Amino acid sequence: MPVKSIEELRHVGAQIFVSCGAPLREAELVIGELIEANLLGLDSHGVQRITEYVDSVKSGWTIPGAPVTVLKETATTAIVDSGRNFGAVSSRKMVDIALEKAQTQMMAVVTAKRSNHVGRLGAWVQKLADRRMIGLAYANGGKRGHIVTPWGGREGRLNTNPIAYAFPTSGHPVVYDIATSMVPEGKIRVMQKLGKQLPPGSIQKANGEPTTDPNDFYGPPRGTILPFGSELGFKGFGLGLLAEIMSSVLVGEELSEEYNYGNGFTLIAINPEAFCGSDAFVALMDELHRYVVSCPPAAGFTEVLMPGDLEFRTREKRLAEGILLDDETWAEIERAGRFVGCSLFA
Amino acid sequence: MPVKSIEELRHVGAQIFVSCGAPLREAELVIGELIEANLLGLDSHGVQRITEYVDSVKSGWTIPGAPVTVLKETATTAIVDSGRNFGAVSSRKMVDIALEKAQTQMMAVVTAKRSNHVGRLGAWVQKLADRRMIGLAYANGGKRGHIVTPWGGREGRLNTNPIAYAFPTSGHPVVYDIATSMVPEGKIRVMQKLGKQLPPGSIQKANGEPTTDPNDFYGPPRGTILPFGSELGFKGFGLGLLAEIMSSVLVGEELSEEYNYGNGFTLIAINPEAFCGSDAFVALMDELHRYVVSCPPAAGFTEVLMPGDLEFRTREKRLAEGILLDDETWAEIERAGRFVGCSLFA
Repeated sequence: MPVKSIEELRHVGAQIFVSCGAPLREAELVIGELIEANLLGLDSHGVQRITEYVDSVKSGWTIPGAPVTVLKETATTAIVDSGRNFGAVSSRKMVDIALEKAQTQMMAVVTAKRSNHVGRLGAWVQKLADRRMIGLAYANGGKRGHIVTPWGGREGRLNTNPIAYAFPTSGHPVVYDIATSMVPEGKIRVMQKLGKQLPPGSIQKANGEPTTDPNDFYGPPRGTILPFGSELGFKGFGLGLLAEIMSSVLVGEELSEEYNYGNGFTLIAINPEAFCGSDAFVALMDELHRYVVSCPPAAGFTEVLMPGDLEFRTREKRLAEGILLDDETWAEIERAGRFVGCSLFA
Repeated sequence: MPVKSIEELRHVGAQIFVSCGAPLREAELVIGELIEANLLGLDSHGVQRITEYVDSVKSGWTIPGAPVTVLKETATTAIVDSGRNFGAVSSRKMVDIALEKAQTQMMAVVTAKRSNHVGRLGAWVQKLADRRMIGLAYANGGKRGHIVTPWGGREGRLNTNPIAYAFPTSGHPVVYDIATSMVPEGKIRVMQKLGKQLPPGSIQKANGEPTTDPNDFYGPPRGTILPFGSELGFKGFGLGLLAEIMSSVLVGEELSEEYNYGNGFTLIAINPEAFCGSDAFVALMDELHRYVVSCPPAAGFTEVLMPGDLEFRTREKRLAEGILLDDETWAEIERAGRFVGCSLFA
């Protein structure tokens, strides 16, 4: 298992995306976001995605360097055409637009059309919180990816639709980023490979009966993932629906069979300056943070944390120690590099 | 068990609140919201609250007829001083302010100070959706009511903090309104009275060990309610935190021991006109509704519904048949009426 330094990954990744046709600045932005996910311990959204992104470019779907434009705008809102550029490139622009509007208008809603995979949803709200804004975000996937059933159903009607938020503190922001399903599809694949069972209540058979066997999910006939919440799954279903509506009905394209971009994606920014004031808000967030983590742990726990605390702790560690990649992931990155004719792998 | 007509309840309730000192229009507004909760089948937020509201007036806490004023305002935001009037009175004003701002600015965030019990959170987002706006809402309770533990903890740090949303369709809106805890406190009280156990994973003992016994919650020493989500309870904890921050940190008063009003409450309105347009949005919501409910049911279910469908079905039924109250609730309403010298109960 190779341990890679941040510098090496950054250099290699940027060169691969440049070889795909991305301008250097955009290539650096894309690899930077993937590395950031690894640093935070969220490896499923890390550099292992390089291969998938390269495949998407090669298939003609992702268009490196494509212009990201504003299709419709008011003082507080914008619809951004991501132009099928890398999702990180368009999402970064959406953050900038949201920030600018929320600085003068106190709030903003910015949504995307034709966006590719935005990566870790928390990344974008975190950037708002880094600028002392409140960030809320919603995302979905295309209709073909409808593998999550509504509460009480047995066919897919939603994707694993994540929701995220971030709030500024005087240290690292509070960052929350969850899937609204019981499990991500990636976990089912991993358990299938390992020949293991899933926790009860995660998935069901195509006929709507409970199962823990990953093979029942892949079928045929194909099963479904249950909405987050176990016996209160109607609550999780409602959250998935919220993400669905906010990230794609809002922009008017939800139910088209053709609408199968990486993610529908909507970002809300709210400026605390319009309320108790940014300084007071940050001070109260610090106080709330102390109050929550001062809670003594329950049986089986050693401490209480706020959302994001664990990830930022991992980040400190990995910044110092580098990022451990499995051999297969590194081999795939090398293959992707050779595939796009990157001189580093000549 | 008396069945009461809507007209009778409306008349009786309004007269009781007028006898408390409320102007007739405000009295009608308060009883109207309580009845609406009963109609939708949400009896815990219905006319049984009359007694509690009357007690609060008598104790000097709730001030009927108190002015509801705007403390701080921008084109898109407002902080409303609810003035300790009935929560329904100030919340109705907050809806009007949010609507007006979202009509011209495309979005608005309106938050409350000194608000009493806002009742059913879904009521306020529903009123936004009735005017073809998207509504999001967050509420909390005072610090003394911190009975919900953070994920992995064993002391209270949050209340049952609800979140709600509503989206317009061409029929009744999609309305979602949930507590971010496993159970509301009311349910624990009911089970204690009945001498029954709670579902596993709902509450824990003061020492952080699991229990299903309601007496372990009331103590002493007092136990806690777990955040929504069972083994994924960190997701539910994060939702409770979101409600906490949005509804009271934002307004700057969260952690004061003295801050023990009924609810912190924040309302967000977003105007679909700025995105795909209101007509297209409503049409797509109708299509999404059809798509979701077309899902065949899983084992043990007979149909798939959208959030709010069941409640609006109950409403049709109760509008026709009246509202069934238990004898105790009606006796309490009569007692409250006599207590405030309402001539109906002389």
